[in-house]
Amino acid sequence: MINPKSKFRNPKSIYSMPNLYVALTHYPVVNKRGDVITSAVTNLDLHDISRAAKTYGVKSFYVVTPLKDQKVLAQRIIAHWTSGTGADYNPARRRALETIKVIDSIADAVEDIKSIESQKPKMVATSASNYPSAISFAKFRTILKTGMPHLLVFGTAWGLAEAFISEADYILEPIKGSPDYNHLSVRTAAGIILDRLLGV
Amino acid sequence: MINPKSKFRNPKSIYSMPNLYVALTHYPVVNKRGDVITSAVTNLDLHDISRAAKTYGVKSFYVVTPLKDQKVLAQRIIAHWTSGTGADYNPARRRALETIKVIDSIADAVEDIKSIESQKPKMVATSASNYPSAISFAKFRTILKTGMPHLLVFGTAWGLAEAFISEADYILEPIKGSPDYNHLSVRTAAGIILDRLLGV
Repeated sequence: MINPKSKFRNPKSIYSMPNLYVALTHYPVVNKRGDVITSAVTNLDLHDISRAAKTYGVKSFYVVTPLKDQKVLAQRIIAHWTSGTGADYNPARRRALETIKVIDSIADAVEDIKSIESQKPKMVATSASNYPSAISFAKFRTILKTGMPHLLVFGTAWGLAEAFISEADYILEPIKGSPDYNHLSVRTAAGIILDRLLGV
Repeated sequence: MINPKSKFRNPKSIYSMPNLYVALTHYPVVNKRGDVITSAVTNLDLHDISRAAKTYGVKSFYVVTPLKDQKVLAQRIIAHWTSGTGADYNPARRRALETIKVIDSIADAVEDIKSIESQKPKMVATSASNYPSAISFAKFRTILKTGMPHLLVFGTAWGLAEAFISEADYILEPIKGSPDYNHLSVRTAAGIILDRLLGV
């Protein structure tokens, strides 16, 4: 007999859950001159993107940094809201930050997803630049409907390094706003992209 | 003869410019218990929402607070990026923050728009709650195509006070994500709403 509280009670809800993972990486990204750097963790990136990830049903939100002190900082922020005084004060914040996994590298995110899904996810890079090979939001929405696991990667600072983008399975088209201004924060861009991919 | 650099060189570009103003207000908003409060200005709200406003062609972004020290704080943040060292370091940030006007009240925003447009804007309240009278994003997109001025108001803290919402000309429907989680930051919500209204 199926437990009425089980997620299997309504098969439709299983299939409508997107099989999407999100990563925010602090390496390899570029600075304003285009040099590859490791950027610092920003408190509100963790809050805003985890809340958007939770709102749109993303399975996990990976915060990627190879720097030990930055990992400690990220873990401290998360702990405050998931087991510290913040957890009682704001349970909604707790539920969002609980989706975060702080890890060393994007390769580690791929391994984690592989252990959950029993298959490697397809990697999808984001960029504010136009790439001729980029796929549209509509196309990626269709791809997500297959239920195959995908890892959508956002870069901090001035964006993902070229070498990383060129190795991804897909590059997602940029958000187009004003023809002469397109400088969204990564927090805002992540929210808009999740809405375009998963919003109803 | 029309100056080729004039904005009148392409009439289409005039009509496709949205006649939308955005306000982020710190009063009257509610805290987690529903009490009406004045909230504090958050640095990244100014950055993120001004960048989204600029990206989507919003005419002005009003930051509303009745508190003198909070106005000074907001002006100091803006000045750093528009005339301070930040202006040279990051001109894109400057262009976004230049769209901000720090004012005392939403009534002052209405007066400012009236002086620019020669007519009072319609006021549109946002909320994460469902109101039976709310208009859809599609409906508001259509309304914006009339070219009439509109002021879209976002509340900080736990959102706009009920008394304010009930006096607005329109209430915009909430962003619907997961059925059991809907707690976006105001920064993310503003970006998604502007994309839904003005994105291409």
